[in-house]
Amino acid sequence: MEQRVHEETLDPQDWQALRDLGHRMLDEMLDYLEQVRERPVWQPAPQAVRRQFKQPLPLEPQAPEQIYEQFKNTVLAYPMGNIHPRFWGWVMGTGTPMGMLAEMLAAGANPNLGGGDHAAAWMESQVLDWCKAMMGFPLEAGGLLVSGGSMANLVGLTVARNTKAGFDIRTAGLENAPKPLRMYGSVEMHSSIQKAVELLGLGSQALRQIPVDEHYQIDVKALETAIARDRRAGYQPICVIGNAGTVNTGAFDDLQSLADICQQEDLWFHVDGAFGALSVLSPQLEALVAGMQRADSLAFDMHKWMYLPFEIGCALVRREEDQRRAFSLTPDYLSHATRGLAAGKTWFSDYGVQLSRGFRALKAWMSIKENGIHKYGRLIQQNVDQAHYLASEVDDHPELERLAPAPLNIVCFRYTVPEKDDEALNALNQELLLRLHESGIAAPSYTTLNGKYALRAAITNHRSRREDFDLLVEYVVRIGRELAPAF
Amino acid sequence: MEQRVHEETLDPQDWQALRDLGHRMLDEMLDYLEQVRERPVWQPAPQAVRRQFKQPLPLEPQAPEQIYEQFKNTVLAYPMGNIHPRFWGWVMGTGTPMGMLAEMLAAGANPNLGGGDHAAAWMESQVLDWCKAMMGFPLEAGGLLVSGGSMANLVGLTVARNTKAGFDIRTAGLENAPKPLRMYGSVEMHSSIQKAVELLGLGSQALRQIPVDEHYQIDVKALETAIARDRRAGYQPICVIGNAGTVNTGAFDDLQSLADICQQEDLWFHVDGAFGALSVLSPQLEALVAGMQRADSLAFDMHKWMYLPFEIGCALVRREEDQRRAFSLTPDYLSHATRGLAAGKTWFSDYGVQLSRGFRALKAWMSIKENGIHKYGRLIQQNVDQAHYLASEVDDHPELERLAPAPLNIVCFRYTVPEKDDEALNALNQELLLRLHESGIAAPSYTTLNGKYALRAAITNHRSRREDFDLLVEYVVRIGRELAPAF
Repeated sequence: MEQRVHEETLDPQDWQALRDLGHRMLDEMLDYLEQVRERPVWQPAPQAVRRQFKQPLPLEPQAPEQIYEQFKNTVLAYPMGNIHPRFWGWVMGTGTPMGMLAEMLAAGANPNLGGGDHAAAWMESQVLDWCKAMMGFPLEAGGLLVSGGSMANLVGLTVARNTKAGFDIRTAGLENAPKPLRMYGSVEMHSSIQKAVELLGLGSQALRQIPVDEHYQIDVKALETAIARDRRAGYQPICVIGNAGTVNTGAFDDLQSLADICQQEDLWFHVDGAFGALSVLSPQLEALVAGMQRADSLAFDMHKWMYLPFEIGCALVRREEDQRRAFSLTPDYLSHATRGLAAGKTWFSDYGVQLSRGFRALKAWMSIKENGIHKYGRLIQQNVDQAHYLASEVDDHPELERLAPAPLNIVCFRYTVPEKDDEALNALNQELLLRLHESGIAAPSYTTLNGKYALRAAITNHRSRREDFDLLVEYVVRIGRELAPAF
Repeated sequence: MEQRVHEETLDPQDWQALRDLGHRMLDEMLDYLEQVRERPVWQPAPQAVRRQFKQPLPLEPQAPEQIYEQFKNTVLAYPMGNIHPRFWGWVMGTGTPMGMLAEMLAAGANPNLGGGDHAAAWMESQVLDWCKAMMGFPLEAGGLLVSGGSMANLVGLTVARNTKAGFDIRTAGLENAPKPLRMYGSVEMHSSIQKAVELLGLGSQALRQIPVDEHYQIDVKALETAIARDRRAGYQPICVIGNAGTVNTGAFDDLQSLADICQQEDLWFHVDGAFGALSVLSPQLEALVAGMQRADSLAFDMHKWMYLPFEIGCALVRREEDQRRAFSLTPDYLSHATRGLAAGKTWFSDYGVQLSRGFRALKAWMSIKENGIHKYGRLIQQNVDQAHYLASEVDDHPELERLAPAPLNIVCFRYTVPEKDDEALNALNQELLLRLHESGIAAPSYTTLNGKYALRAAITNHRSRREDFDLLVEYVVRIGRELAPAF
């Protein structure tokens, strides 16, 4: 080296200053979490806040303290609300303080979980083994931690397509399929299933949508009829998708019957258990998922009903080899070694879409150890008990009407006025929900069931208490009464 | 509420104890980062460490302090090594202390970036606008932050397929394609392109692999010939994939010529700029990516050459509407509102595979502000200068042989002994690399170029200094000399 070259780094010039800022961030985030109950769930932001995110690309450095202040004044001041005890919109996770600390450690250590022989990779295998144990899958099954339910469904359905196509679809493509491939699930399937089927090139028409009964469960007879009809018409049925907890009402398909059909018909059995699969952890609920352990592939989220911070979901595949064969593609520059850093039995990139992969295993590993699985079971049961509590409050109140069964953690209901028709009630409840959001009191979301606009509370929140549902009912009735004359 | 029910939570019973532990974690992680240079890059772990990850599912809680100790004794003691100044394996990111703090804040706030009207969503839009500005894309283009390059390529190629198929492929599927669809790129394409094409149902045979010239750039004439031949044979060409920085050697295709061809032939132009696209930030390098701004879609990583913690990549799509039409699927329970929490112009879930999405925007937003884009340009240039420095050290050393041009940040070379043939040298260099990994001194990776096993240093590391490359050369030669007699 002839001359001294000036070389820069992104490490701080002043470690102590960054350290001080980091400690302040940590303290204030813990304050924020500890006091979250005292704040509004959500509130609309002034235009001045929105305008802060219309700035030109920063060319020169800004002071870290000011950047952090701006974060507090925007993100913490105008949050989505899903970490609040009275947020029950869509199906969201809450996160935990320990999950936050785990994410800090993961980002600091910053390993790449594409593969390799290092402790973070063994930890991910450990978490996958625990997932298999939770779900009743054999230890030798395949699996992958993914971004969430959508990706877990995509992984499962890719393996289904590739395994059951009956020809080398990875090379030859669908253009060489001897017969058009078909998949089956109920009309209550989650949208991510359709998205996956479209992505896979099958087209949404290849996803047969089977009707449900009054419990929102798939009509098994109609399914058998559809499969038989498709076979006669020259199609090739390859996969049945069972719901373990539908997004609209929390319904469970009869998974045993679906498993039987798949066995008889030689079809792949995929279970979308995005949140419902975790019911297995509660002794009172596990009967709901009977048959789930017979699935060829299972998708579920851990950032919903395991309350971990985003993003983490899991795909399990009964026969590891099916999963590897669907995804592995190991070129020269990635060929695996027998010793050194590039060794390691499992290269996770061989089992899914991603090559570089973050260390999402850490928050699962730390949290499962922190709480123990029994506590997750109790909390899941607690949420279901809260849903039943809310459902009974709704049923007991003359101005409220329940719009669907509440077998699990989802309650769909509306404010009613005897003389009003559905059209008027739909408009009234729509406005009611917006006012409820704007009040900052509570945040359920909404859906439409048989043409009726429903307030929908999906409870996957470890901070909720029964008093929170009392408050929801109180405000829904109060706002409903205020609005009723105008609708 | 009739009776008091015991309700649990995952919030700590003792906030102060968790707070103390959090501060200790933060201090020790910052120590770890500050001292990373003093540690071995990588080292093999004893069996006792691996056995810690073969435990049964924890049923009851464990003490947080013990969990954290176990993390330190395993993950921090036996790391992948990619945050070390002398790690140049594959193409990895390094992460930064500020990126770590940002991930802590993101996990604490824990918003869901599927969509909605809240500050985190406006921040993601801001980061996307900055990405467009960096890459020379129009502000009205579509875009999405994703897990990394593999997903960004999948997003781009999905939009390509759906937009150029010429029929309603989302509904009808590939089984109804009037003609078989074909895509084109060079033999040096990244494996994630093939993975995406397989996932999309086209089959790898639909991805035409065009030869490269001696600079590892796509042979443009051969591409034109292949397109014409396919058209004559009844295929439907839909997309050309250009490389901005190949993974083997860092080569750039002639993107202007590819853009011209796509324009003439009415093909989708996708650029895989996983790490190379960021060259645009250095005034000395930006000529390499000339034509990139003409792409219909562009994929790049921000956890590689922007040094952010995993995971973050970006897909840009010139016409937002193409991207929305390829992915949007908005059922009743997700229909977007005009007011309240569920409002918001952009629902990110309409633009990609994921529905629930984490807050990866925060680390990008904070880091870009912390450093300013000019600094990223200088660091990227610094890595390229370091590659040239290493290349010249290799060229100057009689026992080392360079095996490919080094136009960017990747240097492929080997230890040589005059009388030995390639077979012997391959075996020698393979063992050399393992010993180098096991020494803990440095971690390049490897590839095979024209049958020759090459040590491969890909420099996307803001902690590397020139002296680190001196040490690499010193140890490669030292280990090579030790090994030579045995091969």
